[in-house]
Amino acid sequence: MDKVVEEVKGGEEKALAELLDFLRIPSVSADPAFNGETARCAKWIADTLEGDGFDARIYETGGHPAVVAKYRVSEDLPTVLIYGHYDVQPAERADGWSADPFAPYVKDEKIYGRGSSDDKGQLYCHVAGVRAHLRATGTLPVNVTFLIEGEEEAASGHFDKFVRESGELLACDCIVVSDGPMYGEGHPALIYSLRGLMYMEVTVTGPDRDLHSGVMGGIVMNPAQALSSMLGDLFDDRGSIAVPRFYDDVRPLDRWEREEWAKLPYDEAAVAKGIGVSTLAGEEGFTPLERLWGRPSLDINGIWSGYTGEGSKTIIPSKASAKISCRLVPDQDPDKIAEAVEAKLRAVMPEGVTLSVTRMPSAYPVLLPSKGWAMDAAAEAVRGAYGVEPYLIREGASIPVVHTLAATLEKPVLLMAFGRISDRIHGPDEHFHLEDFRHGMEFSARFLKEVAKIRG
Amino acid sequence: MDKVVEEVKGGEEKALAELLDFLRIPSVSADPAFNGETARCAKWIADTLEGDGFDARIYETGGHPAVVAKYRVSEDLPTVLIYGHYDVQPAERADGWSADPFAPYVKDEKIYGRGSSDDKGQLYCHVAGVRAHLRATGTLPVNVTFLIEGEEEAASGHFDKFVRESGELLACDCIVVSDGPMYGEGHPALIYSLRGLMYMEVTVTGPDRDLHSGVMGGIVMNPAQALSSMLGDLFDDRGSIAVPRFYDDVRPLDRWEREEWAKLPYDEAAVAKGIGVSTLAGEEGFTPLERLWGRPSLDINGIWSGYTGEGSKTIIPSKASAKISCRLVPDQDPDKIAEAVEAKLRAVMPEGVTLSVTRMPSAYPVLLPSKGWAMDAAAEAVRGAYGVEPYLIREGASIPVVHTLAATLEKPVLLMAFGRISDRIHGPDEHFHLEDFRHGMEFSARFLKEVAKIRG
Repeated sequence: MDKVVEEVKGGEEKALAELLDFLRIPSVSADPAFNGETARCAKWIADTLEGDGFDARIYETGGHPAVVAKYRVSEDLPTVLIYGHYDVQPAERADGWSADPFAPYVKDEKIYGRGSSDDKGQLYCHVAGVRAHLRATGTLPVNVTFLIEGEEEAASGHFDKFVRESGELLACDCIVVSDGPMYGEGHPALIYSLRGLMYMEVTVTGPDRDLHSGVMGGIVMNPAQALSSMLGDLFDDRGSIAVPRFYDDVRPLDRWEREEWAKLPYDEAAVAKGIGVSTLAGEEGFTPLERLWGRPSLDINGIWSGYTGEGSKTIIPSKASAKISCRLVPDQDPDKIAEAVEAKLRAVMPEGVTLSVTRMPSAYPVLLPSKGWAMDAAAEAVRGAYGVEPYLIREGASIPVVHTLAATLEKPVLLMAFGRISDRIHGPDEHFHLEDFRHGMEFSARFLKEVAKIRG
Repeated sequence: MDKVVEEVKGGEEKALAELLDFLRIPSVSADPAFNGETARCAKWIADTLEGDGFDARIYETGGHPAVVAKYRVSEDLPTVLIYGHYDVQPAERADGWSADPFAPYVKDEKIYGRGSSDDKGQLYCHVAGVRAHLRATGTLPVNVTFLIEGEEEAASGHFDKFVRESGELLACDCIVVSDGPMYGEGHPALIYSLRGLMYMEVTVTGPDRDLHSGVMGGIVMNPAQALSSMLGDLFDDRGSIAVPRFYDDVRPLDRWEREEWAKLPYDEAAVAKGIGVSTLAGEEGFTPLERLWGRPSLDINGIWSGYTGEGSKTIIPSKASAKISCRLVPDQDPDKIAEAVEAKLRAVMPEGVTLSVTRMPSAYPVLLPSKGWAMDAAAEAVRGAYGVEPYLIREGASIPVVHTLAATLEKPVLLMAFGRISDRIHGPDEHFHLEDFRHGMEFSARFLKEVAKIRG
């Protein structure tokens, strides 16, 4: 292993130079004006892996192309599939960047540029980790498949369909997803669960036009009032979601989970202060981490009705709308939750208005095995690369593709993030700490070795 | 009287021609680009009245000028003050007008053009009514003062201040306000009460920026949820406003009022159908007319928070705002009501958010004597001009200047509207029925005579 670790360090300069080239490509997936750049970026990463000896192919998915690159050492060795994405969030200098977001640079031990942490930098940890083996031994200790998509930031569904239809192409023994932040700075976690998502837009309609509140106020149900009241009824006074059947399928937290999470460093007052509120809120009877990771939530993401300009206008609005979403936990089903929320809204809707509901794309919650050989291999690699024992946690956010990968390939998925919460992903001056880059490269190199040790 | 009524008919052609000239002036008060036109319009109406023998003067108020025109016959005669406004709502052909809104024309027995019903046409009923006396007798049966403002549609407060400071200038025995619709088509009402107005904008603030609902959903009080819940708590389940002290100062309806109103033609199903709702709503225990005229109401006029664009965005918004207004009845006080609503919102506000409240201009409710010599004179003039017995009603809307006129001049105010609900005031193709114009002119001529008869 020492030789491989040595080669991680030896390859760092080249890896960094290449990563900067990778970051120079404005592979923005949400804006069709950049379709030429996403195609160029897919070709760039495919060519790079081809240069390392991979059999790299570009697949048209109907959206931005996907790259599948395979390095097959032997049929007898296990195969590790590494997932990442080459597309990035939109970014313009005017958004508040200190420099052109696609002119990356290193300053104060950090790599600055759009995609540096999300996700090109994290993907490059694996590229460099694999390469260290090739430099040290001329081969790999396991078979490796890179699966690199181009529409993670655009959620168009093409890639999801591609995965579901490519079970054979992507067959493997375990899957590694590196996208997101560590639990603590410099202290990685192994993540075994993600929340899912239900999203809907609702519109309450009253009169067929805005009315004069002097002429009609007091005899017409006001849709903004009706919607407010209906949304208010979605919670009880203990912070629980007051929707019948909502909690029916929620898998109770295991005792070990609550015990482990209670040991994690978490400063509730500091979190509140960090977002500018006097106190955290939420469901009674659960700690903040339990509420974030193990309990479903409901949020109003937007609401609009009537006159919203300067000054006063005395109307009774014709319509009122809201966007409502739920983060879901195992074993909740987004469709059943959407039905339950809609049924509750209809049950409390006053007379004199009507309700229409439009559902948006959803995501299933994910519960992965919290134990097993892949977890063991990752934990050992964390010990080696970071010198700490990894936390074992869940996550509150959703990564829809994880559910698809797990369901299609039916193999352990390892969620192993290399970034930090403070990396400003999706914001201006996104960056990736060189220390995290180095740790990630070493983790990747060590992980492949550990897999070979356990399953080789 | 026959000679005067004859002169109303004889002067109709000239009055209509002059009204069309009056309507050609785009005296839009809300847009400073038209300040030259409002000034021109004030001068036009002052010059016209001067031509009829009035002493007409233009007063700078700090806003659009006011016109005060006096015709003094004798110190011994009573003085009737006639209020109207020469300014109009904004109007552009592109808003849906069939023709240039400031190129008025007569079609199908209706005068089309911005201001035709609100309020130039109604004001001109009085101009022509006064003139009929002058043509018939060379003088007037009473002293007349026209008080004509230029910012009724802009509510800037300058005119209100002018009235409050001009008690001596405007001294009179009764005040006539003609602005708005009759109760039924061709069937006028004497209005003895108007509702007042309390208006506020509220903002609930949670985190100091929008948060990711995956990363924070379940541990932060969502301001849109908080505001919805708070607004929902403003009503109970019987349609009453659930704000402590809200109804404290509400003057109960007299028995005669409820009895009279019950006799008025009112088709609840037709009203609901006319605005496209399945049923009317509101406070239990009161008829629709009682709720509109004799009970206060609370409406959300606008609400906004978070993401309101296409598709989905999974944020917890930083802020949520609403515009809230109440129509008030005698003897409610707008300031006390604003305090009560704010206190209720604060009482039900959850932890983890803050509330800020901005009050907008308010209006006091008005209760005028429902009996007296001015009412008697008006009723007799209605019988003569329209051939019907006038309804005696309240109104649900607010005309702030009425409170100021009544409080400053301490004389009976007669609210005598000549228009129809269907006149499309404030909308495209505003119009005024020639029949209503003729009735209004005759009413005005007869009213002056009746005042002279009773008080002369």
